[in-house]
Amino acid sequence: MNYRMIGYLLGVILLIEAALLVLPLVVALLYGESIVPYLVTIAVLMCISLLLIILKPSNKRIYAREGFVTVAVSWILMSAFGALPFVIEGTIPNYIDAFFETVSGFTTTGASIMTQIEGNPYGILFWRSFTHWIGGMGVLVFMLAIIPSMGGQTIHLMRAEVPGPTKGKLVPKMRHTALILYGIYIFLTVIQIIALLFCGMSFYDAVVNALATAGTGGFSVLNASIAGYSNPAAEWVIAVFMFLFGINFNLYFFILLKRIRDVVLSEELRVYTLLCALSTLAIVVNTMHLFEKMSDCIRTAFFQVTTIMSTTGFSTVDYNVWPDFSKTLLVILMIVGACAGSTAGGLKISRVIILVKSAFSEIKKVVRPRSVNVVRLDGETLTDETVRKANVHLALYTLLILASVLAISIDGFGLETNLTAVLSCVNNIGPGLGLVGPAGNFAGYSYLSKIILSVNMLFGRLELMPMLILFSPTAWKKR
Amino acid sequence: MNYRMIGYLLGVILLIEAALLVLPLVVALLYGESIVPYLVTIAVLMCISLLLIILKPSNKRIYAREGFVTVAVSWILMSAFGALPFVIEGTIPNYIDAFFETVSGFTTTGASIMTQIEGNPYGILFWRSFTHWIGGMGVLVFMLAIIPSMGGQTIHLMRAEVPGPTKGKLVPKMRHTALILYGIYIFLTVIQIIALLFCGMSFYDAVVNALATAGTGGFSVLNASIAGYSNPAAEWVIAVFMFLFGINFNLYFFILLKRIRDVVLSEELRVYTLLCALSTLAIVVNTMHLFEKMSDCIRTAFFQVTTIMSTTGFSTVDYNVWPDFSKTLLVILMIVGACAGSTAGGLKISRVIILVKSAFSEIKKVVRPRSVNVVRLDGETLTDETVRKANVHLALYTLLILASVLAISIDGFGLETNLTAVLSCVNNIGPGLGLVGPAGNFAGYSYLSKIILSVNMLFGRLELMPMLILFSPTAWKKR
Repeated sequence: MNYRMIGYLLGVILLIEAALLVLPLVVALLYGESIVPYLVTIAVLMCISLLLIILKPSNKRIYAREGFVTVAVSWILMSAFGALPFVIEGTIPNYIDAFFETVSGFTTTGASIMTQIEGNPYGILFWRSFTHWIGGMGVLVFMLAIIPSMGGQTIHLMRAEVPGPTKGKLVPKMRHTALILYGIYIFLTVIQIIALLFCGMSFYDAVVNALATAGTGGFSVLNASIAGYSNPAAEWVIAVFMFLFGINFNLYFFILLKRIRDVVLSEELRVYTLLCALSTLAIVVNTMHLFEKMSDCIRTAFFQVTTIMSTTGFSTVDYNVWPDFSKTLLVILMIVGACAGSTAGGLKISRVIILVKSAFSEIKKVVRPRSVNVVRLDGETLTDETVRKANVHLALYTLLILASVLAISIDGFGLETNLTAVLSCVNNIGPGLGLVGPAGNFAGYSYLSKIILSVNMLFGRLELMPMLILFSPTAWKKR
Repeated sequence: MNYRMIGYLLGVILLIEAALLVLPLVVALLYGESIVPYLVTIAVLMCISLLLIILKPSNKRIYAREGFVTVAVSWILMSAFGALPFVIEGTIPNYIDAFFETVSGFTTTGASIMTQIEGNPYGILFWRSFTHWIGGMGVLVFMLAIIPSMGGQTIHLMRAEVPGPTKGKLVPKMRHTALILYGIYIFLTVIQIIALLFCGMSFYDAVVNALATAGTGGFSVLNASIAGYSNPAAEWVIAVFMFLFGINFNLYFFILLKRIRDVVLSEELRVYTLLCALSTLAIVVNTMHLFEKMSDCIRTAFFQVTTIMSTTGFSTVDYNVWPDFSKTLLVILMIVGACAGSTAGGLKISRVIILVKSAFSEIKKVVRPRSVNVVRLDGETLTDETVRKANVHLALYTLLILASVLAISIDGFGLETNLTAVLSCVNNIGPGLGLVGPAGNFAGYSYLSKIILSVNMLFGRLELMPMLILFSPTAWKKR
């Protein structure tokens, strides 16, 4: 294990976090709020990161395990320090609560322990939403985008952080890829801000909601989430952008390259769109008796489907009071998630496609033992390794969910609440059903459960492997 | 597809069912009850089976797909005709209800739609429990045991019916294997009857409860299940036998062969025993405040753990009122199940071991890309195919559960009830939580949901593949 290189990389990441904290500091200044929470945190981050960077390693070579460990540790450290402003400002006095909230932010989950959101400082709420935006694209990808050459095999960092089974094979140069991805990300965010302004939202609210949408996070600045605006136009805008941020960013790049055919033929996009449309339709049919106007029903159904599939977690209705069928459908969509290579969580559509196809290829193998069966995606034959990794992912995912539900069951909130709390955290959504539904929050859980759920969010965001490797004794053994 | 051979095999199976119906007929005679329900059913079965057998096929060759289709259709037909006595006698007037109850019997599930069990004819309740015993070891295995030569590749029938990833490689001859398995099965059943008689149970009750235990079914003849006897000694006996019937029958054969080393070194047995002991301990600690006497607590905890792990489903307590932790633990044990090659359902311990080991071998592959990682069970290296099949099983199992929960959610009984109803049916257990808990039953579900749950029981009992192949268009295409 190249500890000095890991330390160096972590130093750079913490320095970036310090730089990013300047933004909420500026917001606080503009609104005449105390800037002490940000100054202290920035100072702490600078000291630690400079100490780590000074010991510049002679050997910059890193391998897969160093990449995974760096990613896992950097997300934990970013959250650990990112929680400081909440504690220092007094918004969330307890450190574990603040850590939960920050992990929820960076992992783009949006599960909150805050019972009162309105009335808190603008700077703090900006930082809270900004963590979604930072986490959405990944701070490591950001690092690759802004720093000319990190040396070593930076591909291992990227591989560990970009979600989904299909990794960006866009451009051979990592830095170039990272720049393009961030370009698309920023462009879409700005378009959404403008669209929300057109809907009559204030500039501050438009910015924070766009940041939370882009990262598919879901923290809002109103107690009632997006429902608090009573603004149907803004709901449509947010729903559409949640859908857009759930699409593989590679496809946006294809559009730039005028490779429209590749976009149209993307199986993942077609399944995502179809699933989104059919689910909306099913929920409309199932809930239309609850609405006076059909347009409200369609908008609300589409909003809940996109908020759950894109794993954002904004809400415009308490779907806890909906019929069982709609609630169950939303729980299933929680597990599926959106496209690989987007800012969304969940199993990812492409992984679900691979799992279903490989399962049905097994049926064919039994029926025709001598036939050759391959699993294809977008016309390309998938390697056995890709299929195996998708399957192993499902096994580890199931194991993690069951173990976590058992662990937090000690708090006694019932199976529905506990199961959906874990699903919501592992899939980086935000709300679940029952006590953690859109009208509730995670404040009632014990500190132990909050830590378990925080770990779940990190496992989910980093697609299991980096966290598993961090906790695996083999990774730490000498070669 | 060799339709005539499939028809011939189905004819033989229905003839066997007719023969097995003589037993409840004798019970009805002894208790002076009407024997019309059994006579009519036997007559119907004889007519159909003779028609099928008369068209003896010239070509006896069958392949895997014919084997799977035969197994799937035979279980459906056995249940379809086995439901007749309930309808004719008037115990369960509605045919779909009777079909659900009979599928639940043959698949050794034990989920019931009967709200009043006591007071029904002895013959009918005997038939109900006897279906567990027949289904437990599989009627096809029985066919292989009693008929000298079925011709063709009977291995395909056995492969499709015996549960779990490790198939009996005991004896090269199928018929010999089947005879040994049935010998062990009958021996253990008789021992349990004797033990229950010693506990003061009546002969009739001892027999029906032993039949339901041996098949790990769970139908009882009292409204309050085993709790109705208020007989701690009998509870211990049943709990121990539920544990024993959850063990791979191969291990009993090893004992006969004095290969004690193989038994002791069986990873599956050790994990099964350990999981059973640890779960009992955890539930004792979690529920001891609910009991006056520690001995009651330990017995009740051990009974619930063995009833769930062995997927029997007898009950001595309404665990719906237990703390969340114990309930969640039981739900997880529902999924795990007991050993492969036993009469139990669930994922099976050995499959869980394979899934966990293959997942952790994937972690090692990332950490040490050049190392060779193999998955071993009982010291033997597993083929890639075995590992892949376990993974595909998990994917299909998850898909089936999610789709079924969504389908039955239309009835509006809530996520906890619906999820555990499906888990209980797919894993062939019987009771779940909520409305389908030990104190409830499945009577409230709509006919559509009852059919879906019946299909779930068949999928679970036959380990997914036979039913999937039956419904797969590829299987029916000409080669």
